Amino acid sequence: MRARTPENKERRTRDLLDSARELAQAQGVRTLRAGVHVSGVRRYFESREEILLVLAGREWTDWAGAVVARLGAGERPVPAAALAGLLAGSLDERPLFCDLLAHAQVSLEREVSAASVRAYKVAALDAVARLTAALTRAVPGLTGEAARNLIAAATALAATLWQTANPGEVLAKLYAEDPSLAHARAEFVPRMTQVLDALITGLIGPA
Amino acid sequence: MRARTPENKERRTRDLLDSARELAQAQGVRTLRAGVHVSGVRRYFESREEILLVLAGREWTDWAGAVVARLGAGERPVPAAALAGLLAGSLDERPLFCDLLAHAQVSLEREVSAASVRAYKVAALDAVARLTAALTRAVPGLTGEAARNLIAAATALAATLWQTANPGEVLAKLYAEDPSLAHARAEFVPRMTQVLDALITGLIGPA
Repeated sequence: MRARTPENKERRTRDLLDSARELAQAQGVRTLRAGVHVSGVRRYFESREEILLVLAGREWTDWAGAVVARLGAGERPVPAAALAGLLAGSLDERPLFCDLLAHAQVSLEREVSAASVRAYKVAALDAVARLTAALTRAVPGLTGEAARNLIAAATALAATLWQTANPGEVLAKLYAEDPSLAHARAEFVPRMTQVLDALITGLIGPA
Repeated sequence: MRARTPENKERRTRDLLDSARELAQAQGVRTLRAGVHVSGVRRYFESREEILLVLAGREWTDWAGAVVARLGAGERPVPAAALAGLLAGSLDERPLFCDLLAHAQVSLEREVSAASVRAYKVAALDAVARLTAALTRAVPGLTGEAARNLIAAATALAATLWQTANPGEVLAKLYAEDPSLAHARAEFVPRMTQVLDALITGLIGPA
């Protein structure tokens, strides 16, 4: 179905993004990238990589919105343990975001046009700026630089721990056969919460 | 050149690994993977991915050895800031390790045989065990679990920050043109040191 008016084109673009999102979430980003090309995509996007990077930008925006909403307007200070739980929980609820974070850095960002990577960076930086403002309001003693370091660490950990918690088929079989290797498969939420709790405590200094 | 004796085969395997290491370090893992196949490799390794995962395992062993040596036998307690600097510096000296860490999780581990991924996991877990023993000896108040969390966080951050500090061609050009985007390109050692210092402080608790 070809879109003949600007409205149709916009709707078709949105529909393609929604389908790609469902597929990526169901199959994982790696499997989706290795799969067959969906017909019609090239009329609206440069490539599958561009679609995935658009989705990654939206995930940044959505995650920032959710965290900012949960932090509130600073009327109640948020203690370190609660903030660690909030961040870990919000990332655990967003498996596609975690999966995309890893792929964006290693490959997606490197495989699209300047305009596409720029749009992604603008979305990510805007999300970081909104998160930084909300975090410094809600957490006494947390500076802007410390908040940016916290966001960088939380997303880096989420990207890594998500891949660890979702091994490939061969590795999953190995873990099932050999319990001595299985403890490499750290659980996402407990480890994330422990690390972020300690990090936030260290960033805000002694109470 | 075909290797006709076990000694020749071993030497040839070692030579191939050494060349692959030089190439990967010079070009980056992503470029190497996308490049042409080196002839003769298939006689000694399953695939380019297996070679890279063998290199990643060796990098884990090498990194652990260097950190353990610098930590000493626990005769002098290592303060948080010194440990953060030691870890950040040791990872900064190992760009190939940082690059491989990101690729191992997202793709290499998922593209090799069970025997190859098992050998990699054994090397990585052995390195983590040696690091954990040395860290708990050298850092008063650091438990084994906290040490493992610290190693997980340090390697996750190194994997992410290295990719950020080494953007692709298109992104590097964008950063040069638009300074408002360039601050996404965090410097590896300062950010790594800041985050690890705060994390270690939080992990060992108030002095």
